[in-house]
Amino acid sequence: MMGRQSRATERTPGRPREERVTGAVLEAVVDLVTEEGIGAVMMDAVAARAGVSKPAIYRRWPTKQDLIIAAAETRFGVLAVPDLGDFRAELHLVLTARLEAYRLPGSDRLISGLIGAAAETGTAGGQYSEYTERIMGETRRILERGIARGDVAPDTDVRAAATLVAAPLLFRLIGEQELPDARFVDALVDLVARAVGSAH
Amino acid sequence: MMGRQSRATERTPGRPREERVTGAVLEAVVDLVTEEGIGAVMMDAVAARAGVSKPAIYRRWPTKQDLIIAAAETRFGVLAVPDLGDFRAELHLVLTARLEAYRLPGSDRLISGLIGAAAETGTAGGQYSEYTERIMGETRRILERGIARGDVAPDTDVRAAATLVAAPLLFRLIGEQELPDARFVDALVDLVARAVGSAH
Repeated sequence: MMGRQSRATERTPGRPREERVTGAVLEAVVDLVTEEGIGAVMMDAVAARAGVSKPAIYRRWPTKQDLIIAAAETRFGVLAVPDLGDFRAELHLVLTARLEAYRLPGSDRLISGLIGAAAETGTAGGQYSEYTERIMGETRRILERGIARGDVAPDTDVRAAATLVAAPLLFRLIGEQELPDARFVDALVDLVARAVGSAH
Repeated sequence: MMGRQSRATERTPGRPREERVTGAVLEAVVDLVTEEGIGAVMMDAVAARAGVSKPAIYRRWPTKQDLIIAAAETRFGVLAVPDLGDFRAELHLVLTARLEAYRLPGSDRLISGLIGAAAETGTAGGQYSEYTERIMGETRRILERGIARGDVAPDTDVRAAATLVAAPLLFRLIGEQELPDARFVDALVDLVARAVGSAH
């Protein structure tokens, strides 16, 4: 939201080129990871593939970790779920949006690479966990909206429940090394709705 | 179980040395990952630290991936949960055992490194997902025991429910980059017991 706002107010003649460079670089990162793995994300290779200079990349993303997070965020970004008047429906929407992104070619390598890189770069851990925090926000919000509405139990531990929503699809993709599917999403919707539903 | 049986029947004078080498190598891997990260797991460094020859390592673990999986399995291995007559109690036991292992120094790096390495080595993915399958077995078994006993709903999707047990602690450690604690385990026990409990 912030990004979109500043884009509207700060529009200058230089802006379209800025956006084109950003898009080309992040697309190059996703393509390299998909085709060759995270090890292929070297500044030289990214610059060559995106057709930009290395300084143009370093100016925007000072470290490789920043670059990988930004590329991941083009695919697994912040969701905005409208109030559908029903927690189950909103949960289904969140899980289906993530499912579609996780099923894209290269998503498993992109996420695994992000995790591996975060573990190696101690100092950059902060940015990585800020990213996780950011993309978890909408899940916590639909839980809180459900509590306010009355279809999520008022005593729900929202932060714990949010992990129940976010983690299983990732675990199937990265841990079980299997593409999650719509049937799995349906099973998760049933399980999570029972876990936090106000009916108990 | 297989391993333990063959150890009893095949005992030879050479066996204690075999076990000592295995123990020293896997401990060296865990130490290197804890201190320096997964990038430090080079055959030379492992051999030097364990005080064994490189061929002795290659004979047992042909690839670096095999070695990392074996080291991870010394810490996050197959659990054996006795029938406690109550699904909630068994669930608490599983989550507490995993919690203790995840809280050990270096566990985050070991798991992240394992995930990162699995994504890079296409062919070794099979062994990694076999490992995941192995350590998920007990969780599925306590769910099935609960169904047979009657305190887990008979229509539970056991494979989906097992991800609800296994994934959140890992997500907190690796995704949220925060040490899971006993309070989180208690919240998960409540959530998962509601999700699969026969009371709904």
